[in-house]
Amino acid sequence: MQRFALIGAGFIGTVHAANLTANPNVDFKLVYDLDTKRAATIAASFGAAVAHSVGEVFDDGAIDAVFIASSTDTHAEHVRRAADAGVAALCEKPIHLDLAQATETVAYAKERNTLAMVDFNRRFDRDYAELKRIVDSGEIGDVELIQLSSRGPSMPPLEYIAVSGGQMRDQAVHFFDLARWISGADPVEVFATGSTLAEPRLADYGDVDTSAVTLRLASGALVQIDCTRRTGYGYDERIEVLGSRGMAEARRHRNGNVSRYTAGKVTDDGLHPGWFERVKPTYAAALAAFVNALENGTPISPSLEDGLKAQAIAEAATRSLTSGRAEPILY
Amino acid sequence: MQRFALIGAGFIGTVHAANLTANPNVDFKLVYDLDTKRAATIAASFGAAVAHSVGEVFDDGAIDAVFIASSTDTHAEHVRRAADAGVAALCEKPIHLDLAQATETVAYAKERNTLAMVDFNRRFDRDYAELKRIVDSGEIGDVELIQLSSRGPSMPPLEYIAVSGGQMRDQAVHFFDLARWISGADPVEVFATGSTLAEPRLADYGDVDTSAVTLRLASGALVQIDCTRRTGYGYDERIEVLGSRGMAEARRHRNGNVSRYTAGKVTDDGLHPGWFERVKPTYAAALAAFVNALENGTPISPSLEDGLKAQAIAEAATRSLTSGRAEPILY
Amino acid sequence: MQRFALIGAGFIGTVHAANLTANPNVDFKLVYDLDTKRAATIAASFGAAVAHSVGEVFDDGAIDAVFIASSTDTHAEHVRRAADAGVAALCEKPIHLDLAQATETVAYAKERNTLAMVDFNRRFDRDYAELKRIVDSGEIGDVELIQLSSRGPSMPPLEYIAVSGGQMRDQAVHFFDLARWISGADPVEVFATGSTLAEPRLADYGDVDTSAVTLRLASGALVQIDCTRRTGYGYDERIEVLGSRGMAEARRHRNGNVSRYTAGKVTDDGLHPGWFERVKPTYAAALAAFVNALENGTPISPSLEDGLKAQAIAEAATRSLTSGRAEPILY
Amino acid sequence: MQRFALIGAGFIGTVHAANLTANPNVDFKLVYDLDTKRAATIAASFGAAVAHSVGEVFDDGAIDAVFIASSTDTHAEHVRRAADAGVAALCEKPIHLDLAQATETVAYAKERNTLAMVDFNRRFDRDYAELKRIVDSGEIGDVELIQLSSRGPSMPPLEYIAVSGGQMRDQAVHFFDLARWISGADPVEVFATGSTLAEPRLADYGDVDTSAVTLRLASGALVQIDCTRRTGYGYDERIEVLGSRGMAEARRHRNGNVSRYTAGKVTDDGLHPGWFERVKPTYAAALAAFVNALENGTPISPSLEDGLKAQAIAEAATRSLTSGRAEPILY
Repeated sequence: MQRFALIGAGFIGTVHAANLTANPNVDFKLVYDLDTKRAATIAASFGAAVAHSVGEVFDDGAIDAVFIASSTDTHAEHVRRAADAGVAALCEKPIHLDLAQATETVAYAKERNTLAMVDFNRRFDRDYAELKRIVDSGEIGDVELIQLSSRGPSMPPLEYIAVSGGQMRDQAVHFFDLARWISGADPVEVFATGSTLAEPRLADYGDVDTSAVTLRLASGALVQIDCTRRTGYGYDERIEVLGSRGMAEARRHRNGNVSRYTAGKVTDDGLHPGWFERVKPTYAAALAAFVNALENGTPISPSLEDGLKAQAIAEAATRSLTSGRAEPILY
Repeated sequence: MQRFALIGAGFIGTVHAANLTANPNVDFKLVYDLDTKRAATIAASFGAAVAHSVGEVFDDGAIDAVFIASSTDTHAEHVRRAADAGVAALCEKPIHLDLAQATETVAYAKERNTLAMVDFNRRFDRDYAELKRIVDSGEIGDVELIQLSSRGPSMPPLEYIAVSGGQMRDQAVHFFDLARWISGADPVEVFATGSTLAEPRLADYGDVDTSAVTLRLASGALVQIDCTRRTGYGYDERIEVLGSRGMAEARRHRNGNVSRYTAGKVTDDGLHPGWFERVKPTYAAALAAFVNALENGTPISPSLEDGLKAQAIAEAATRSLTSGRAEPILY
Repeated sequence: MQRFALIGAGFIGTVHAANLTANPNVDFKLVYDLDTKRAATIAASFGAAVAHSVGEVFDDGAIDAVFIASSTDTHAEHVRRAADAGVAALCEKPIHLDLAQATETVAYAKERNTLAMVDFNRRFDRDYAELKRIVDSGEIGDVELIQLSSRGPSMPPLEYIAVSGGQMRDQAVHFFDLARWISGADPVEVFATGSTLAEPRLADYGDVDTSAVTLRLASGALVQIDCTRRTGYGYDERIEVLGSRGMAEARRHRNGNVSRYTAGKVTDDGLHPGWFERVKPTYAAALAAFVNALENGTPISPSLEDGLKAQAIAEAATRSLTSGRAEPILY
Repeated sequence: MQRFALIGAGFIGTVHAANLTANPNVDFKLVYDLDTKRAATIAASFGAAVAHSVGEVFDDGAIDAVFIASSTDTHAEHVRRAADAGVAALCEKPIHLDLAQATETVAYAKERNTLAMVDFNRRFDRDYAELKRIVDSGEIGDVELIQLSSRGPSMPPLEYIAVSGGQMRDQAVHFFDLARWISGADPVEVFATGSTLAEPRLADYGDVDTSAVTLRLASGALVQIDCTRRTGYGYDERIEVLGSRGMAEARRHRNGNVSRYTAGKVTDDGLHPGWFERVKPTYAAALAAFVNALENGTPISPSLEDGLKAQAIAEAATRSLTSGRAEPILY
């Protein structure tokens, strides 16, 4: 049984709190948030106690592990506190929006042998895990081409965009990780081009809402990612992996299985309205994998280093957006 | 090269004329129709000559085979003429709406060793042939349950209904043949119930437009057929075959492969507007099989006897519609 | 907040216990099972207390509602106890395998104004609820034809079969309820025929494993149900509703969304291995509807009377299996 | 009625000959090929006469139009001869592999008011035409992102590769045309990167077999194309068009509609074995459009200028393959 604290009591913190409660190997002890009222709400619903300071979380030996789901600018600090306290950490991405600071934080944690995982939750999607299994089994031969679509349903608020780090660092980064994980290889080069089609004001932030990214692996295999912030038709992600002996596809998810037949048309249930409906089960699965690593010593995946590598790709992609050329990726 | 005459120059006669012309082993010589103008139109388009009497078709040794596509009440007479003349015959179903007369006609042709085939064209559908192949291969084990849907898009005119023989003899009969062919077994019993939901005036003809039929094979395997004359959403047929080791399904056909994604819905291209768009390729394939039998002595399928057996099921089903009980099928 | 007891601590009782715990408006107080050890296991996992007798469940005013998930032969007795105690009851189907005794039990509960619901959980399936909504909205016009498939993956043990009441009462009954519910009409007549194809020893129990059922509604609309106990390819249920202006289909569920492309074939994730994976979410939804009825006075559906009507259809269907004719349904 | 000559009697010439014969508004008069025996075979099968020289094709006023399906290096010469003779021309792509010479040829034909069309046959695919209709109707708003897959089943012979002009000019060019046509806009910039994964010897030809191309339209809309010469799983092409108000997709085509259900898997009919099975109907449709333009003065599409523009994109893409940067497209 692992004693957990949760830092961050917003929307996603509440999701994590429910998963911590439902996991049979977790004892959900403490919840901390700058906004004590929000922490108290979670504490009351899920039978945890409120921590009134970060110190209270880490300093009393009360917990084995911490789930860091606070605002992005606080992740690195909490990872360091966990490292200091000898507490394992499951941290939402990114460790720090600034790659150099993220790298230092990871080094800090590594020196202290901190058990830590970055929450790229899509690795725990049932279908993506099956894709990975197919690739690893050799069933489709060597990977030659991967297609990923990352498409959000509607523009996030500009306030969110302003602190997000931009489409590469905030949105595409999940798919950079998936491309690395599924192919089992580190991309060496990236080309990215983007536009502000959904929200022209993004240009003020040096950001884009629609982009096309191409990665090149050392083997010569290619990866294409298309990203949009606003589809208008729902949340849409899918992956195709072409190998030398076949292809595997993780198809779009639908929100139901009903078809309506009328003259000349068949109208099916469509896509999920938002990302959360699509990826919801992955959060519990990611937590379970982390807990399993703590309990049974299974390897941690994705590691903090995986988080850094995905960020490194995002940095190079961001450079390419303005340079107009393929950029080397510096890990 | 087989010299052919075509009897019947209506809509479907024109389809057959085009197929006769395109078949490399057919020399399309003659076309006959009571309406000489219609015959002349086909003759001009496809380079055949007009026959001005049935005698001209059969009596001069000008042809090797005849395609009988005239009105139903003339089929039996033309089959007998072909038998007398030693000419092979490809005949649209039914041989005769009256089963006794159909049976006599088949006996007559058999005594004269007439090469004859009844045009249950759905046996030549690519997907149904694949279903048959799967069943015959043993891939899904013994047949246990077959589901067939036979659904027309809109009510035929009442004048058509009046001479059609009713929904069992006119519409369901194709699926009785498919059930026999795919299962490789003769049903022993049939239950049918029907209603006049699309066109209440059908009741005046003792006919139904919506019906549910259950066949029982000697093995105990069961067959369900649903028939409607009017779907409102297009022409719809499909077949499922459940075996002891798996299931095979010939899915509905769509008229295209385009999907449109909008909020919460995906709208695909729908079904074909009518039966002809769905089954069109089967006519050329049926003709090719018949010509192959003539040229190379391959077995004829479906034979005239197959036609009689499907009719026998239709007769029993028609009895069941009013008796309210499962009726034995008398071959 | 509704205080609940659970009677029955087997596999499905454990499912209900988890749902009772997760429902925010339920206080899961007591669990009873003849096998006290099983009750204790559930009690420990979900924070309830063990009741050591049925009296302890009902007699102390400790609960507002009872979930009856014990063996079939005890349902009626527990419903009566609930009625005596003024406790609401959510009861697994059937109320009693003997329709006369079930009818008496329902009358008994009704006289005492017991709030009671029979757990035909498929009414709470997201897709079937959407079908119902489509039909009720008039979108596809008047119902004319309904197709339901009810197909289990593998033969249940003969000991189960022996006490199940047979395929009509045990398996088809769920689909009799769905047909009534979706069409909004009571069938008036039923024809059923069946065979023992998967397990010949079923004949010793007067039972069948493969059956085809046809219902007729007063409007003339028809319903076809195919049932098998053993598909070999997984758990398979689906529904099509044809109306006068279109068709709606609740398609088969797949256990994933991955496709593998190889030469000439596309291999998708298949069906669920068993019924539980397919219908699991319906149990929580059914419970939530019941709790909502208790809390807010919303109408109870399916009512005990709905349970009786589905049973009445099953009785007539069972008669038809041997009579070979369409049987009137006596409600 | 348009009198046609066909130049080129190879595999695709035979396809065109059959379509010329079947088109009711075409009188197929002459066929020419350097290999007179091949020409004679077509002439015999389709009732045309053999032309023994190019002069015989063009000089006697015997034809209204010519279908140029000879080897690539002769296209431009035949277009000029047609222009000289006042004969309309339907020409396989490309006009000339060298863009400068192609441009001169088009100018030459234009000065002589030659009615000419380049046979980008995919514009006549039923599904792609429907995509174009959807975009033009405004149904999905402004185009923002287009995804195209162009995937051949197996490596063509190296002799073919050697004279093909490379993957951009030979394969991707069809999709450059589709991107222009569907979006209604000329791309301004292209990035391409490629590898030799299927056939390392391609490197000797400066060619690639696997590539990822990104186009940028003046509006900022983006286009991604993935190309492979060898999938191993059949011929695969598909298009998605994301607009500001929805998405439209022309899905992969399957070679049949049969599904096989076994434990945990559903195996469907797969993709076509080769490009010809997939695009076969487009050739007759392209011819019909050309004939319609001749007969009724409807606009010609794709024009020779369309052919040049697609080539211009291919040139820039070929440059980008080695420059590693986005290249401007010079029309």
